[in-house]
Amino acid sequence: MYRIIRIDLNEKRVQSEVCKPELDVIGGRALISKIMLEEIEPTCDPLGPRNKLIFAAGVLAGTTVSCVNRISIGGKSPLTGTIKESNAGGTTAYKMGRLGIRALVFEGIPRDDKLYILYVSEEKTELIEADGLEGMGVYDSAKELRRRFGDKVGIALIGPAGEKMRLASGIANTDNEGIPSRYSARGGLGAVMGSKKIKAVVIDDRNAKGPFIANEEQFRKVRDTISDIIINNEQIANSYTKFGTANLVNLTNSMGALPTRNFSTGSFEGAEEINGQKLYDLITERKGEGKPSHACMPGCLIRCSNVFPGEDGKTIVSPIEYETIGLLGSNCGIACLDTIGRLNYLCNDIGLDTIEIGGAIGVAMEAGVISFGDGEGAVNLLEEVKKDTYLGKLIASGATLTGKVLGVNRIPATKGQTLAAYDPRAIKGLGVTYATSTMGGDHTAGQTLRAPVDHRKPEGQVEASKNAQISNAIHDCIGTCFFVGGAIKGDLQLLGDLIGSMTGKPCRVEDMKELAKATLLREKQFNTRAGFNEGDDMLPEFFYYEENPATGTVFDVDREEMKLVHKFE
Amino acid sequence: MYRIIRIDLNEKRVQSEVCKPELDVIGGRALISKIMLEEIEPTCDPLGPRNKLIFAAGVLAGTTVSCVNRISIGGKSPLTGTIKESNAGGTTAYKMGRLGIRALVFEGIPRDDKLYILYVSEEKTELIEADGLEGMGVYDSAKELRRRFGDKVGIALIGPAGEKMRLASGIANTDNEGIPSRYSARGGLGAVMGSKKIKAVVIDDRNAKGPFIANEEQFRKVRDTISDIIINNEQIANSYTKFGTANLVNLTNSMGALPTRNFSTGSFEGAEEINGQKLYDLITERKGEGKPSHACMPGCLIRCSNVFPGEDGKTIVSPIEYETIGLLGSNCGIACLDTIGRLNYLCNDIGLDTIEIGGAIGVAMEAGVISFGDGEGAVNLLEEVKKDTYLGKLIASGATLTGKVLGVNRIPATKGQTLAAYDPRAIKGLGVTYATSTMGGDHTAGQTLRAPVDHRKPEGQVEASKNAQISNAIHDCIGTCFFVGGAIKGDLQLLGDLIGSMTGKPCRVEDMKELAKATLLREKQFNTRAGFNEGDDMLPEFFYYEENPATGTVFDVDREEMKLVHKFE
Repeated sequence: MYRIIRIDLNEKRVQSEVCKPELDVIGGRALISKIMLEEIEPTCDPLGPRNKLIFAAGVLAGTTVSCVNRISIGGKSPLTGTIKESNAGGTTAYKMGRLGIRALVFEGIPRDDKLYILYVSEEKTELIEADGLEGMGVYDSAKELRRRFGDKVGIALIGPAGEKMRLASGIANTDNEGIPSRYSARGGLGAVMGSKKIKAVVIDDRNAKGPFIANEEQFRKVRDTISDIIINNEQIANSYTKFGTANLVNLTNSMGALPTRNFSTGSFEGAEEINGQKLYDLITERKGEGKPSHACMPGCLIRCSNVFPGEDGKTIVSPIEYETIGLLGSNCGIACLDTIGRLNYLCNDIGLDTIEIGGAIGVAMEAGVISFGDGEGAVNLLEEVKKDTYLGKLIASGATLTGKVLGVNRIPATKGQTLAAYDPRAIKGLGVTYATSTMGGDHTAGQTLRAPVDHRKPEGQVEASKNAQISNAIHDCIGTCFFVGGAIKGDLQLLGDLIGSMTGKPCRVEDMKELAKATLLREKQFNTRAGFNEGDDMLPEFFYYEENPATGTVFDVDREEMKLVHKFE
Repeated sequence: MYRIIRIDLNEKRVQSEVCKPELDVIGGRALISKIMLEEIEPTCDPLGPRNKLIFAAGVLAGTTVSCVNRISIGGKSPLTGTIKESNAGGTTAYKMGRLGIRALVFEGIPRDDKLYILYVSEEKTELIEADGLEGMGVYDSAKELRRRFGDKVGIALIGPAGEKMRLASGIANTDNEGIPSRYSARGGLGAVMGSKKIKAVVIDDRNAKGPFIANEEQFRKVRDTISDIIINNEQIANSYTKFGTANLVNLTNSMGALPTRNFSTGSFEGAEEINGQKLYDLITERKGEGKPSHACMPGCLIRCSNVFPGEDGKTIVSPIEYETIGLLGSNCGIACLDTIGRLNYLCNDIGLDTIEIGGAIGVAMEAGVISFGDGEGAVNLLEEVKKDTYLGKLIASGATLTGKVLGVNRIPATKGQTLAAYDPRAIKGLGVTYATSTMGGDHTAGQTLRAPVDHRKPEGQVEASKNAQISNAIHDCIGTCFFVGGAIKGDLQLLGDLIGSMTGKPCRVEDMKELAKATLLREKQFNTRAGFNEGDDMLPEFFYYEENPATGTVFDVDREEMKLVHKFE
């Protein structure tokens, strides 16, 4: 019996409702799309009282299976104007699952001007004034909240950027060690949380009864099978576990897909200074607090996260991930992991999406605010954000607004959101995803990097993106990390078996696919009503006309074919 | 035999083509919509090489009939992303008509980084480097261009804001006296001109043969009839001619429709300090260069323009108009015509739309950058624009970006464009126009102020807006000032008779209406392809929920009914 807890901020009222049985298999992104389509006027102001902020756990949340505890956070995005689901690791979903909570739905906006914490435990759910936390950085805030509520709580929180409703604001989730660096970063949902005056959600699962599992024995069996497969998957061990997602730098650089100097090319001469090997070497040489491998969620066996230490062995940031390296590194012409780490820490602390800020700094560099490669200049730009100068406000608003205000035409964003670290002229399936996804420029909406296509050719990319959009949506709906698909070698029925043993109702791969497609179509419908049509499903113009020098290609996937990407039989 | 002159900036090539006979009655906004729909990819980057900038004269241009020489300038708007036509008085269309030029179409973008002037005369059309004019203000630039090309030329030009592609940039046209203050202000077309590196269009009609008139005698007869009606229209004489458009201040203030302090109410306690009477009194008391009445176009008999002098009798600005008073005055809480005049001059000189900048300053005031009513602060904000500081760049980007970056939710704009000086909760037909017009928040797209409806009630507003959108489009297509409709007491057949005698083919009111409807539908089609649908046809959320204290009303016109506004039988 799962519950949905609604927090009416207008009335300061908390209400709990029991989930209808039909929601047994509908969690995460699927549940967000359902609540949004049914309850939110799609044309509403994303930062106004008619938007909602939804924390939705996946259907397997609260169990200790590897990779199943991602938290989906959603609402109408102030950055893109579309529906938005942004998921992250950490302990938020795990603890929600243990408390039997499928979703937290924040509604309205407080009439007073105070900042609040939502405290959730087995015994109560209540709004508490966030005295003394106004304007405090994410790291200090998390520390202070653990001091107040105990070391074991899970926390989802925003930084000063979110409080000020800056459009590139994300929501940080604490990991197993209480470090608030697992970001639901994309789409400006931190600003939505800020608009609702919620500084933090504190989840205390001390007396939690744990999730209800219909068939425990079967569940344990499937869990053990999955664990065995992951542990014995050498490819995962030698790539993601050892080097983290940074292992992608060499791959994308060799493909001509590593965004470099505001997406002006896909090959970075400094790639070796920022790749997985370099990261691994620095961490293992420097020792101290460093860890080349680290779990972002309870029970994760892939452990692609890391703790990156400075020369003194003290943590600079945890983790450094590929997308951050691509956007704050090569895209800004910065070939130094120490600098990228500092930028990453600053973004995390202020409460900003590293992808969006990497895009914004790249655009500011193109405008001549600072030069490409100027790491100290980039750090200073984030200090401007901290000081909340006008330049800082601009950078914190993301790449699109930065580019428009500074008069830059080359803005690498779709529907207002900065593209992830894959040049769409080099990996054209991702170009289709960026253009057509219901989320704006987002690689996790349909990652085609491993699709069996010639990435530089236009043929087959729509099909690749369609399949990836379905497959990624499956993970987002279940709450699984999308690396688990590779880790279990594509045998998605294992996830179906987990769900089946949990709910007591069989779940086939086909059922999961239908759930994913229905979710995509609901999202599409929301966006249509919000004012989007096929004319919005375009990449920035320069990708169509300006060759990526590393590949000699432009983006040339047929537009008519792209219109078919969400046509499911 | 009219010509269309195309200027390919990429190749620096000028080509002239003879208009097909079907274009005999298609000028101004109608011609812009046709060229744009046929030739421009609607999803193109408005500031990229695939957009075009079109100067289109009306079908009566070049004649000396009153009110028929408005110049329509069009292209895809970088502010709204929609199709855009912005028209103004001045001498541009008059001189184009005398030269037999129906349109100038700027295509592409120069490969070099130089700034250009287009010089057009009977003998030649050529691109000339704009040496020494880079960054120069509009007034000095116009003076310098007249020094170079002679006192008699007509000039359309941009200021430093347009050169830098600031999104609130307009295009100034010189009047009979060579003063560059007749602005095609809206939609950021100055930025499009800047993107094409055109500082100015200089039109030299010294040896022009004049427009071709098929039946001169009949033409003169109709012209004289129109002149007689206008001259003897006492209502016009006692309002527009005496007080200019500022005569509207009392009317809208009494209706609760005068935007005040960022559209937080529709009634301004300082209205008497900024109304038509006050303007008239100041001009007549101060004398010097002041003129309470002045013609914006050759031959105009309404003469609603003015020259506003300071205490020393020297011109502060010419003209001050109602929209500027509403946006830079009451909307900013500024109750002083001298200050409004200075702000107006600064906007004109930098090359900015006063409506958009009034919106942006109002939003900045709401954000606390300066206080409402702080006139010196507002002047300083425009000095920031001149200095091109980050705050200045922001203000020059218009109200929507200013609000988004500063974290303000109350942004009085639709499709990214600031509403004109009529609160849509008090004049609901204009609310329908703002929401549904193909141009974003624009009163000239469908002015319902004089419609026979109860402006505070939702009933009848869709019909009123529909009729106004058709009627305003007629004027925009013919190139007539939309005040002429009132001046000739609604007898539009007189304009049809002018067109008929000019072309030699009869033109009924019904024909003009069909032309207007076809234009609206073409514009709508362009916008649909550019990514717009009914979800975009909304006012800012606060108008639906926040009462205008002056009227006690919210905007509550039925959304389903609004969808019918462009359904023509």
